[in-house]
Amino acid sequence: MSTIFSKIIAGQIPCYKIAENDLFFAFLDIEPIREGHTLIVPKCEVDKIFDVDDSFLSQWLVFAKPIAHAIERAFPCKRCGLSVIGLEVPHAHMHLVPINSADDLNFTKPKSRVSDELLKSAQDRILAEMK
Amino acid sequence: MSTIFSKIIAGQIPCYKIAENDLFFAFLDIEPIREGHTLIVPKCEVDKIFDVDDSFLSQWLVFAKPIAHAIERAFPCKRCGLSVIGLEVPHAHMHLVPINSADDLNFTKPKSRVSDELLKSAQDRILAEMK
Repeated sequence: MSTIFSKIIAGQIPCYKIAENDLFFAFLDIEPIREGHTLIVPKCEVDKIFDVDDSFLSQWLVFAKPIAHAIERAFPCKRCGLSVIGLEVPHAHMHLVPINSADDLNFTKPKSRVSDELLKSAQDRILAEMK
Repeated sequence: MSTIFSKIIAGQIPCYKIAENDLFFAFLDIEPIREGHTLIVPKCEVDKIFDVDDSFLSQWLVFAKPIAHAIERAFPCKRCGLSVIGLEVPHAHMHLVPINSADDLNFTKPKSRVSDELLKSAQDRILAEMK
């Protein structure tokens, strides 16, 4: 059975897409811990990041770079942090989050679905900075 | 002036080394948030990870992979998590931490220097799993 991320990549579940190439797909987390919170997933269904093939590992941070820079420009923050936890969805994924403190990458805080208006606004701001 | 991480890489400050190649140096965090907490730093002094040259970015996760697998085997955990925050030392660094929950990658928790005995034990356990 496909993971929820594979269904998003396949277009079977809608998302707020940020970028895509042959190997990766980036889209907004609909339960962001900060506005601009973006997920990067490989187009292969592997649970743990370090079990993903080196052909993906070698391109992951390179793919993330322009997205992270756009997030830094789009939202007031000290920098774009990143985190890989992966205990909820069995499809490796990297979180990119604009941070001002370590608490902005604290995934123990309660999360909730934000409005489509807020997500569309965040998507627009990131995409504008990627041009 | 060199960063504390450059001094560690140069051997001017002692550390519990885990691995090294031409581009990266890995060693134990002396204030671990979990036993086995390892730092990976590039051998270039760049503050933010996404400002580091692609020649490093493309090899970072590949270098981290065998270390992460060794950490997973050496300590009871669900997997090895990773995080890049970087608000304290202006030299990009990636945290590898054995995790059982998101709270194990929560960097807002108070940290403290652990004993050399504990650090040496953690180093030995990781190195034994890398053989």
